[in-house]
Amino acid sequence: MSLIETPYLLFLGDAPDQLAAKVAQGIKDWRPEFAVGQFRMEGCKADLGLPDMTLEEAKAAGCKTLVIGVANRGGVISQAWKKELVAALEEGFDLASGLHNLLRGEPDLVAVAEACGRSLHDVRVPEVDYPIANGVKRSGKRLLAVGTDCSVGKMYTALCMEREMRERGMNADFRATGQTGILITGDGVPLDAVVADFMAGSIEWLTPDNDADHWDLIEGQGSLFHVSYSGVTMALIHGGQPDALVLCHEPTRAHMRGLPGYSLPGLDALRDLALQIAKVGNPACQVVGISINTQNMPEAEARAYIAKVEAEMGLPTTDPFRFGAAKLVDALAAI
Amino acid sequence: MSLIETPYLLFLGDAPDQLAAKVAQGIKDWRPEFAVGQFRMEGCKADLGLPDMTLEEAKAAGCKTLVIGVANRGGVISQAWKKELVAALEEGFDLASGLHNLLRGEPDLVAVAEACGRSLHDVRVPEVDYPIANGVKRSGKRLLAVGTDCSVGKMYTALCMEREMRERGMNADFRATGQTGILITGDGVPLDAVVADFMAGSIEWLTPDNDADHWDLIEGQGSLFHVSYSGVTMALIHGGQPDALVLCHEPTRAHMRGLPGYSLPGLDALRDLALQIAKVGNPACQVVGISINTQNMPEAEARAYIAKVEAEMGLPTTDPFRFGAAKLVDALAAI
Repeated sequence: MSLIETPYLLFLGDAPDQLAAKVAQGIKDWRPEFAVGQFRMEGCKADLGLPDMTLEEAKAAGCKTLVIGVANRGGVISQAWKKELVAALEEGFDLASGLHNLLRGEPDLVAVAEACGRSLHDVRVPEVDYPIANGVKRSGKRLLAVGTDCSVGKMYTALCMEREMRERGMNADFRATGQTGILITGDGVPLDAVVADFMAGSIEWLTPDNDADHWDLIEGQGSLFHVSYSGVTMALIHGGQPDALVLCHEPTRAHMRGLPGYSLPGLDALRDLALQIAKVGNPACQVVGISINTQNMPEAEARAYIAKVEAEMGLPTTDPFRFGAAKLVDALAAI
Repeated sequence: MSLIETPYLLFLGDAPDQLAAKVAQGIKDWRPEFAVGQFRMEGCKADLGLPDMTLEEAKAAGCKTLVIGVANRGGVISQAWKKELVAALEEGFDLASGLHNLLRGEPDLVAVAEACGRSLHDVRVPEVDYPIANGVKRSGKRLLAVGTDCSVGKMYTALCMEREMRERGMNADFRATGQTGILITGDGVPLDAVVADFMAGSIEWLTPDNDADHWDLIEGQGSLFHVSYSGVTMALIHGGQPDALVLCHEPTRAHMRGLPGYSLPGLDALRDLALQIAKVGNPACQVVGISINTQNMPEAEARAYIAKVEAEMGLPTTDPFRFGAAKLVDALAAI
């Protein structure tokens, strides 16, 4: 059961460029079966290469939810979009958004949604009363991506691993913990918006008992070394009870994201601290590999850097988005 | 400036026994200057040894806020109390409560408070929009109490140290991070109810720049080793940027509070992990001493245990509530 009904019509609105449609692109890349069509307004500069559909066409094609897959300046719900969003509700679509300004904060949308019996999904806000974590061991296996910093590729690492595992016929599900991941998969926990006492419990709820051969691939958040968000990371480790950790790193960053006075830790420091903390909840936890985000490096440099890290750390190392996740999945399959 | 206006009339209601008035007792013990009188209803079995006052007498004595200093079964606002609470609002008192059921959830109290221009303080709920932590070094000094488990005496340790420091003429303030501490001091952050992204920022907000010789004595929450709440502890360490840590321990506990499968860490493990994490935000952080909660031990056994820990750990060790906080304050003064 998905929190958000699929498949989707992806709303690109009046996106000023391709980058503004990053969320829609993520859905198309990682859940192509959910991405039935795109809806573009006059002046839209983004194009996902999907069929352009009217609301009627999308309805006929089986779409259930119009997903706002575009971010504009300030994360607000543009007035220019309102007419189309209202029409979508009237046509029978639910709406889903990860914007800062909430759909439920727009009285006109709320009124039409109520009148039409449709749902407004604001994935920034928890819709569930999560429990307090109980720390009980769960069946099935879990992997968590942890990073030397925020925004180093933890979500993409888990998604790449999910794709590779499913191609091999392994039993695996990406588990989203942030709004983009939730919109991509239709489900998850918006962990940064959960109340402190319930953080770890929300991750237990997200990754319950499962088949013995099943892997939850849990999207990481923040970093143990990022003083603004480290508490969120800590709750992920203790709530997720991971059997396996993948260390994520972006080598060209000059300092911790948003914290000019803070330098990044080494991968060895991340390995030691994350593993020590994870063993409190799961003494059998292992670090299985390293994911390097090489998007800012030419290919030869990227390959050389990965080889160097692999030799120094003695762990399977790759850029799973650029060079494939096979090495990481091999390591996981060996557990 | 205090969040809650002082001094207080302490409302004991129909407390079934002395223990039910624990919050009121804490206020009387730690902020006697706020505890002007007590208000007891028919059948009240608790007594703080304060003057019993009518609302009129308390008003004349300068009381500003009626604090619900009693917990009943379920943490609800008893119907039996309603008539008195309404009368207090009409008499010109604000109300403050740490109960699970909120004052603001009672329509009759809300209506009377609005009509009379009075405030309802539910200290379980944040009343401030906290910032995201920026990690910038602040002036003044900070101490944080960290524990091997939850509820091992972190609040009492910080309060005992504040008392000892003030008696010595040192410049120190206890900083509350839980509802009992907030009711005792009239101010603080209800950290367990803060949204994840703002946890560390709320502690930066609570302990801003201060005089070079000033110490914030920050109440700890949870434990790095308690999987339900470790994220809260992490945010306290990184938001608090402590210069000094005191390790807190209760030696008779069989397992982590509420987690039967989890044993307590040793004080050495707590020292190593907490210090490593604290140094991310403040490389100069030191562990200055150990606080043992010996309430479940006879005096000779308590003294022997403290001496043993002190010898093993090489750190000043005491039960500050039972034997005084002098040792811990000596260590702090030496920084």
